Formats: sequence, C-alpha cells, structure tokens
Amino acid sequence: MSQWQNGTEMPRWLDKRAGLTPERTAVICGEEKRTFRRLAEEVRKTARRLSGLGVGRGDRVAFLMPNGLHTVTLIHAISWLGAVLVPLNTRLAPREIAWQLEDSGAKVMIVNEAHRSLGEAARKACVEGAPKALSWDELGDQPEQETEGCSRISLDDLHTLMYTSGTTGRPKGVMLTWGNHWWSATASALNLGLDPADKWLAAVPLFHMSGLSILMRSLICGMTAVVHPAFDPARANRAIAEDGVTIASVVGTMLTRMLDELGEEHYPESFRCMLLGGGPAPRPLLERCKRKGVPVFQTYGMTETASQIVTLSPEDSLRKLGSAGKPLFPSELKIVGDNRELAPGEAGEIVVRGPNVTRGYWKREDATRDAIRDGWLYTGDLGYVDEEGFLYVLDRRHDLIISGGENVYPAEVEAVLISHPAVEEAGVTGFSDKDWGQVPVAFVKPKEGQSVAENELLRHCRERLARYKVPVRIHEVEELPKNASNKLLRRRLPELIPGGGQGETGP
Amino acid sequence: MSQWQNGTEMPRWLDKRAGLTPERTAVICGEEKRTFRRLAEEVRKTARRLSGLGVGRGDRVAFLMPNGLHTVTLIHAISWLGAVLVPLNTRLAPREIAWQLEDSGAKVMIVNEAHRSLGEAARKACVEGAPKALSWDELGDQPEQETEGCSRISLDDLHTLMYTSGTTGRPKGVMLTWGNHWWSATASALNLGLDPADKWLAAVPLFHMSGLSILMRSLICGMTAVVHPAFDPARANRAIAEDGVTIASVVGTMLTRMLDELGEEHYPESFRCMLLGGGPAPRPLLERCKRKGVPVFQTYGMTETASQIVTLSPEDSLRKLGSAGKPLFPSELKIVGDNRELAPGEAGEIVVRGPNVTRGYWKREDATRDAIRDGWLYTGDLGYVDEEGFLYVLDRRHDLIISGGENVYPAEVEAVLISHPAVEEAGVTGFSDKDWGQVPVAFVKPKEGQSVAENELLRHCRERLARYKVPVRIHEVEELPKNASNKLLRRRLPELIPGGGQGETGP
Repeated sequence: MSQWQNGTEMPRWLDKRAGLTPERTAVICGEEKRTFRRLAEEVRKTARRLSGLGVGRGDRVAFLMPNGLHTVTLIHAISWLGAVLVPLNTRLAPREIAWQLEDSGAKVMIVNEAHRSLGEAARKACVEGAPKALSWDELGDQPEQETEGCSRISLDDLHTLMYTSGTTGRPKGVMLTWGNHWWSATASALNLGLDPADKWLAAVPLFHMSGLSILMRSLICGMTAVVHPAFDPARANRAIAEDGVTIASVVGTMLTRMLDELGEEHYPESFRCMLLGGGPAPRPLLERCKRKGVPVFQTYGMTETASQIVTLSPEDSLRKLGSAGKPLFPSELKIVGDNRELAPGEAGEIVVRGPNVTRGYWKREDATRDAIRDGWLYTGDLGYVDEEGFLYVLDRRHDLIISGGENVYPAEVEAVLISHPAVEEAGVTGFSDKDWGQVPVAFVKPKEGQSVAENELLRHCRERLARYKVPVRIHEVEELPKNASNKLLRRRLPELIPGGGQGETGP
Repeated sequence: MSQWQNGTEMPRWLDKRAGLTPERTAVICGEEKRTFRRLAEEVRKTARRLSGLGVGRGDRVAFLMPNGLHTVTLIHAISWLGAVLVPLNTRLAPREIAWQLEDSGAKVMIVNEAHRSLGEAARKACVEGAPKALSWDELGDQPEQETEGCSRISLDDLHTLMYTSGTTGRPKGVMLTWGNHWWSATASALNLGLDPADKWLAAVPLFHMSGLSILMRSLICGMTAVVHPAFDPARANRAIAEDGVTIASVVGTMLTRMLDELGEEHYPESFRCMLLGGGPAPRPLLERCKRKGVPVFQTYGMTETASQIVTLSPEDSLRKLGSAGKPLFPSELKIVGDNRELAPGEAGEIVVRGPNVTRGYWKREDATRDAIRDGWLYTGDLGYVDEEGFLYVLDRRHDLIISGGENVYPAEVEAVLISHPAVEEAGVTGFSDKDWGQVPVAFVKPKEGQSVAENELLRHCRERLARYKVPVRIHEVEELPKNASNKLLRRRLPELIPGGGQGETGP
C-alpha cells in the first residue's frame, strides 16, 4: 500500500499503450507505418537481441543513428529492458563521442551503417574501455535471448542520459528519469490539449530532447509520431498539408525555411500547433507567422527539463507574441538576481522547478549542487516575467550560441582552441547569420612570439569538435576584452573587428 | 533534489490553474459563471473565513450541500487550506451523517439552508463531540483571517475522506490523496483526449466521486464544469444541445430518462462522450444509444479508485458494447479466483492497482489490509476479461444494490432491520425496477412468538437510513435461505415470494 509513495510504479509504457490501443498508429517514417501492436512486437525482438549481448536493467546503451524507424525501435527496446538510453549526436567529432561513451560507461553502442566509421573512430578515441559496437544490421543478426525485460518501472528509475555542454569543462550527462519524461508529456498535453487523432512531426533529431520527447508523448498519449530522417522544409510542409500532421516541433531556422518554401500556400485548419523552441524567437518571424495564420506557440525548455517547461497556451499564442508563456502545470518559475526573487519586469536568471526537472548530472555532484539548489534549477538563462506572469527569454545561458537549433557553448570551443600549442587565450561568441540564426566566431591571442594560421587552427578544431561548433572565422588579436577580475567579456569580442560587430559574419 | 522522489510536490492546483488560464470558464451553474480567476478570488475569501473558524491543514471539514456554485467554492476552499474534504450525502438519515462526522473527527460542518434541520439532527445524534456547524450564509458572515493556506501540496497529502458502506459494519472513510485525484484526472484525459473547449456536465452529486472528480479534472485540465443543482433530463439535454457540453457523467437511470426526454432529437456533433458508470449497463440501453448515435462510453470505477479506473476508448466504444473497457494508463487489472489469476473468459473477482487507488480506509487498518493486498485492491466485484483484455463486469460487489446510481449495501440495511426488537433475522436484495434500475426489498424472520407490522419496520428504517436505502417492501418469512455454513444466500431471497422472483417489485 505504500508503493505509490516512493516513486510511483507502473507497467512499462509500451506494453501498456499497445494493450490499450493496439491498432492505433504509433509511428510513420516515410512509407513505413507501425501500429503500437506491431511496434511492440518489433521492440521485443530487438530487446531480446540486446539482452543476448548482456544488456539488462540499468546498463547504459548508446546509439549513433539518424532519425528513422530503426532508431524508434531501438530507443523503445533499450527502455523495454530497463536499460538507460545514451543518445549520441551524429554530428559530433569522434573525440566528443568517445567522451560520452566513457563518461556514461556505455556497455553497448549501436550505430547505423552510415555512421559506422564515425562510431569506429569514436571507439578508437576511447582511452579506457570502449563499448561493444554493433551496426543496426549486426544487431538484427544477434540471437534473441528470452527475457521479459523490465515489465514494471518506477518513475524514479533512470531512463535517459543525455549530454549537454556547459560553461566549463566537459559535457555532462543529464539524468532523466521515467518520471521526468512522464511529467513533461502530461504537462504538454494539459496545455496543448490532446486528440487521439493527433500526429506530431519529429523533423528534429531523436537524439535531442525535442525529438525524443515526441516519442515519449506518443507512448503516453497514444499519439502518432511522424518521423522524418532529416529536416527538409518541403517534406515537412507536405506532412502538414497532406499527411494530417497536427503539431510540429521546430526551431527558428527550420520555421523560416518552411515558410519560405510554403510561399503563398497556407497550412490546413487541422494543423493546430507549430511548437517553436531552441532559443528566443526573432520578432519578425513571429509577426510573419501571425500574418500568415500559422498557429505558432513559443516554448522554452532544455534537456534538463525534459523538453518544454514554459509554453504559451492556445488562448495567449497571438496575444502574447514574443513570450515563451507560463510554466506548465505543475511546474514553477522565478527570476532571480542579487540573491533574491525579482519583481515582474526585472531581468535576471530564469530559475525553474517541477517534477519534469532532472535530478542532476551523472557522476557530477559538484555540477548538480551548483545547478540545483533547494529543488530549483538555475538555468543560467536570462529573462523576465511581465505583470501577468508571462516569461520573456532575453538571452540563453552563459553566452550560449544557438546555431540551427544546436547548442554551441563558447567555453567548449575556447577550450579546444587553447589546447593548440600556439594559442595563449581564446574567446568565442555568436554572430547573427541569416541561415543558421547564429554561428560561432573565434578570437585568439597567440603565445608570445608565435603566430597562428587560421587554416591550421580550423583543422585542429574540426578534429575535436562537431562541424556546427567549429568557428566560421578565427581572428588573431593582441588582447581579449576582460573585466577587472580578468573575466573574459565575450559580448565585447565583436568590437575587435575593425568596423565589425554583431550582425555580420564576414567575410 | 530528492523532493520529487517522496511524494511529488507542486503548487496548489487552483492557484496554478488560475495563473495559467485566468479568463477560461471554470464553472457554470445556471445563469452564473466563474472564470478561474474569479473562482480563485472567491475561494480565497471563503478559505479565510474557514481559517477564522480554526480550520487548518489536515483538519476535516464536512459539507452537507446540494450541487451549486457555493458547493464548488467551498470544496476548493477546503483544499486551499490543505484541510480534508468530508462530503456528506444529503440523502442520508441524521444518524448516518452523525457516524461520518464522528468517525472523521470533522472540526466544522457547513450546511446549506435547505439542509439546516438535517444537519442539526445529525449533530444531535452525535454521541461524542459534534463539529461546529454553520450554514453557508453564516460562513459568509465570518470575519476573514489572513492566511496563505497551504500553497504547496504533496501528492501524498490527504485530500478527501469519502464514506462508503461495505459488506459488514459501519461505513468506512476512503482516504483519497491529491495524487489519487491527479492520476485519475490525467488517466481520464489520456483516454478521452482533452480539448481546452471541453465542458463536462456534473448532474451527478458533487458529494459523490463521480461529481467531485469533474471538479478535479476542471482544475487540472483547465476545463469547464457545468454543474446542475439536481438531475433533470430536460435540463441535461439542453446543456448538451445549447450550452456546448461535450462530456457528461451519467448512470443508467439518468441516461434512460435523457433518451426518453430527447425523443426524436439527436445530440450535436460537439457532444463527444456520454460517460456511463454506476454499475453494469443494461444491454438494451447500450443498443439504444448505438442506434441513436449517442457516443456512450461504459466505465467502471468506485470511490476507492477516485472514479474511473477502466473505461472504453474512443475506438472501441461501439465495437465492444457491453464492456467497461481496459484499465486506464497507467492502472492495471486482473481477475482472481481460487487464489490465482484467472485466464481470459474465466469469471472471478476484479482486482486493480494504480496510483489513483486509495491507500486505504480512515482508521481502519483491518479493513485496509483486507481490501488492499500486495498493492492490489480487491474490489469484491465480479467480472471477466475477454481475449483482448476488455473487462466485462458481471455483478457489483457483495450483492450491492444500485438504485438510481446510489449504492445500497444489503448488510447495512439488514443491520438496521435486526436492530428492531421484534426481528430475529433479515435479508435484503435488489429487485429490478424500471425507474431506478434496482430497489431494495427485505425479508425478515420475526423473533419467536412475535410478529412485525411492515409499517412499523419501515418507520424504524426511515429513522435510521437514507430514503433510497429503505426497502420498498418488507416480507415476513419463516426461514431465510442459507448455505451449509449458515451464510445468508441473498440471491435466493426472491424465491420466498410466492410466484415472485427477480424482475418485479410488486405489489
């Protein structure tokens, strides 16, 4: 009788959903469709093959796969065993992947054929034990080992380890429990409403929170996930116009390209929500949506909050253009500055709490203590709330650069630049870019008596960083702007370009 | 960081909802409407008046009020303080109410003007301390005491004590936590879907789980509750036809009367769910709905499960006519007989578990241990599941009689009959009735050498029992049917009527 008091327990979601609505469509990928019943059958097979590899409850299983039906099946199979997902960004450099494999202690990594060499390079870059690696096809050849997997789960059980970078040091694994996903999915449904005929477009990566959360909602809410292999604006528009997609998750650059592609056409009435995340939205883009009757809902969230934590509600989506909305039921938000909660209109750090918020970072008690205080997550992002309690996000955390929806942390890029023998100091900041929203630009001060060739530094970066993190330009400078306590002032970096500044990226 | 692990905490629901969607309509009662903002203001006022009476967190507050805006306000005000609701059935006899007041240890009872004398009689019938009693108007005259009430709640906190009778002994207080209500409301939304424009008709009493759960869903889902003072079929039909009601909670007798009243008319397309609870539905009624295109969804639930735990899903509502559906996400169900889980098609006791299930009975550890074993609630109801897992309820628990949606426990009526000095033994069973579904009929064996007048016994019952529990006929008999171990066989009682039997109630 006390089992509900310490981590609510329940049946594994896929089994429950397949039992409730077996004939409903779980996922559509191109020409392929799966009902929940058939998805569950395929997931069981995959899970039993993983079990044959020694994967069991609590083991970490990494995957390096682009969006696709196989990826959906694998994600559910890992959870079916009670193992922990470690989604790997396919755009990372081998050394970045190696870090996540080692830090998570992944037992197995599954790659698709196209990423086999990247996976192999990542395994070679592992200093300590590298995980067993199999391609999806090789996994299909594995014998099935009879197992019932983890048929009951607790909402406190770990479900996902998803890596994010930060202000300092190496990327950290955000621990997300089944409960974090549950509360996030239900909070979204309580805000946007829920129609059994809903179809949610995942043209964002499944290895990101924005994509993974769509699969979680699909299970919990009994909704169809329409998964695109990669983002293509014409294909995304067709999915809305012809395939009955009712909700789509996008970032600003995706939305701009979709509107460009849409031209004079309009979305059908059935399309009810363009959920816009990935950083503060440019006002002109929102205005354009409003004029065109696109039902855009700005949202604010991060890996640590298992996707959305603040989203506009249907009745406010037009009235409060520019705001990310209010914290979803039952989450909370406050703005903090000078160690106190600020009043409406005052800008400060955005601080949130709620049952969708991570319990912390994997094996990083220091970072966890730093980020989560008295149950509140200090996001590092800047914003304010208006008199009605609507959040306006001013700037993403820690000089975060958002490039095409991917997060680029200046500190991570700077650390790579400084690791070059000729570099004394480095500073990285985001410049506006019409295609990507922002792109990283670097400023380096060479070691005394040395000089650095831009090409050589770019090569150094490309070996160690995902393509989208590599600076589009590296400027050599004599001094970096700093404050009195010698802290780098990244926002003043653009002044170092003669005649330059925010808003242009060169050449 | 561990606060989500032991009883998820969150802001008080009314505040949260009023913050999120202040201008949405929370409740409609006749000509009166309240937005969530205004409801929250009125609730705060009422809560502060209760606080002036000494009511605080954990205190039990009983209310004896029919459906109405005041009742909605009072219910939320009690919760706003973190106090515990004790809803009293306005049809009970004074002695029955007195039992619930004493057993719950209610500190205050609020009555409406029409039930003032009933409340006074109940207080007089209290043997030990009676609660302070105020009419709603008197409460309005109380000074407000400044308080913030209980601004954060834990899902493990007690929210409601709702009394149900059982096979033996006095009624028991079912302990329902905030979490039980939460999980019930979200489970319902995950099954039926959720539209911010939904309006849910509460023509069932708010002092029953079926009505109270509508108020909980209203807060959590941001939905309008349309509250009728009492059930009137024409008014209910008008609410659907003219006022935009999309979902209605009904029991069989209500539905029959609504269909009769509807005549040749039809419900509009916008009406999407007639949620039919309160016992197994007669097949002809379901067929009639199907022919008429009424979207009827059979459901199974009880106070102990905070309303629905098994409900048909939209895609199965026609295909599986006669079934109550499958256990809602994330609840579970099994059929037990001979101390084992039975196979599909085998009839046995319906056993359920899930986070919406009560943690037990107030101060009745024995009854709790008896009902909840290994986390499973043994309902006492009989049923089976088919090969697809759909539940068919065969008979409500313990010879339960359901009369007009109200539960009548034979044992409770028998105990009252036996308390009469002339009665040796008594047996009560349900007879079919075209208006009420079932009505109780009694059989009594007088003490040796004595005889009992039916009128005298009826008077005895009316003093001690709610009207709907009083037998419509009391037959004097020489012997009651019993099995070898001398257990009363209630199902064989009808055979005692010469030429009688199930299906007729006389005269």
